[in-house]
Amino acid sequence: MGLEKYWASDPMDVLRVRQDFLLADLDPRSKPGFEGGKKEGKTSLEIGAEILADLQEQLFAGNQMGDDPRRVLLVLQAMDTAGKGGIVKHVMSAVDPQGVQLATFKKPTEEELEHDFLWRIRKEVPEAGMIGVFDRSHYEDVLIARVRELAPPEEIERRYDAINEFEAELAASGTTIVKVMLHISMDEQRERLLKRLDRRDKHWKFNPGDIDERMLAPKYRESYQLVFERTTTPHAPWYVIPADRKWYARLAVQHLLIDALEGMKLDWPLADYDIEEQKGRLATG
Amino acid sequence: MGLEKYWASDPMDVLRVRQDFLLADLDPRSKPGFEGGKKEGKTSLEIGAEILADLQEQLFAGNQMGDDPRRVLLVLQAMDTAGKGGIVKHVMSAVDPQGVQLATFKKPTEEELEHDFLWRIRKEVPEAGMIGVFDRSHYEDVLIARVRELAPPEEIERRYDAINEFEAELAASGTTIVKVMLHISMDEQRERLLKRLDRRDKHWKFNPGDIDERMLAPKYRESYQLVFERTTTPHAPWYVIPADRKWYARLAVQHLLIDALEGMKLDWPLADYDIEEQKGRLATG
Repeated sequence: MGLEKYWASDPMDVLRVRQDFLLADLDPRSKPGFEGGKKEGKTSLEIGAEILADLQEQLFAGNQMGDDPRRVLLVLQAMDTAGKGGIVKHVMSAVDPQGVQLATFKKPTEEELEHDFLWRIRKEVPEAGMIGVFDRSHYEDVLIARVRELAPPEEIERRYDAINEFEAELAASGTTIVKVMLHISMDEQRERLLKRLDRRDKHWKFNPGDIDERMLAPKYRESYQLVFERTTTPHAPWYVIPADRKWYARLAVQHLLIDALEGMKLDWPLADYDIEEQKGRLATG
Repeated sequence: MGLEKYWASDPMDVLRVRQDFLLADLDPRSKPGFEGGKKEGKTSLEIGAEILADLQEQLFAGNQMGDDPRRVLLVLQAMDTAGKGGIVKHVMSAVDPQGVQLATFKKPTEEELEHDFLWRIRKEVPEAGMIGVFDRSHYEDVLIARVRELAPPEEIERRYDAINEFEAELAASGTTIVKVMLHISMDEQRERLLKRLDRRDKHWKFNPGDIDERMLAPKYRESYQLVFERTTTPHAPWYVIPADRKWYARLAVQHLLIDALEGMKLDWPLADYDIEEQKGRLATG
């Protein structure tokens, strides 16, 4: 599909978390499967943008006219500065905003805390025909919750199971789930945080709490490793993407979305009206 | 700002509905204020995309860090095929999806009909820092409702006032409101509907009901004229955009948004932390 030109292996294979995956072994500066550099990456992203836009339109169209119940959910998880926002901006902007449901999960509100952790998540599940994007997600409830001991260990244990059940439910109702963790190095994170401190137009993106979180990075990595072990399922796989090179991370996420949509064997829906009859009506009115 | 190169007059002035405005007098193929053709229009749209993206980021940033309560609401109204969707796709896609709240209003559900007509609208009002886009809006309740007599005349009368009050409320809470009606000719609409019937990838965009609506076009125009007369206010002006040339309509809406944002005198918010202190923390961690 043109897009494959620089890919030696399909990112869906090469980035997928398998049984023996160890986060500690993954080099955040690597670019698994991609043979080109930044320039080729940019070209590939442009080609991919059009392919993604077409596939998304078919997904949307199939629901609008054919009541196709299917949908896609992209879950984005990462440490601060790893590039979640950039992916939303540079990958998803290729797609008709009408067909995208973006949900950003921040610190839960008091009302949200009064409910089960999945309560606020369920409200944001993408509707049929849509691509949903979760910028952070229910995984925060087994990540920051574990690292900062916001819930007792047995509750964290319960949550892994609840998550698997929830995602199985989503899959059964026609949701293709793509879970992505963006992996950056400590050095790259320092550079990016410093840049936010150095540039007046980036100050708003910085929060002193980001450094507090950074100091807990080892514990976060350990928690991510557990997440991969407990919540990698056939219907809701994890992909870990080295993210020190922003262009690679964007390209990889775009490609995972394209693969997911291609796997759905979409097509334009058939007209549910008589085309010639309607042409006749138009000719006279 | 570069963008002005081909504009002989500011679209905010030239497209604005004033006291003596008559929809019947506006040529849907005209391009008020713009001196170039399609090619220059495309160039202007690209330049404008970057300007719009920067302004939107300042709006968003000001809320994220400075708690700036301001927001923008773009209301899009038009007959079928006039290009609302294209505007969402080609104008709004320039902007970070995180900062856009898009609401599409279709035929009200039974639950929505049990409430006042503004009930479902209020739920979609953009949050602080956001650009909200209404694809159709509360104006349907005085347009299709009047044309198809879904409500008695005295209720329609009441609604104009309710709308003005609602919009005054929004403006008072920091919302810059831009109301746009896209105006296409009957001939251009026929062409666009035929294209939807001719192309397999466009069939899903066609609905036989579109032709029923088309036959009521004179009554819709009369209803739009009334809308302009009753709901054009200093804090929520209407702009009518000739839309037979898609490129012009997109460019004009983009420019209106840019004008609205520039009028807000945005800037990057000041850091609410000590920059040097944070740099020190990063150097050691």
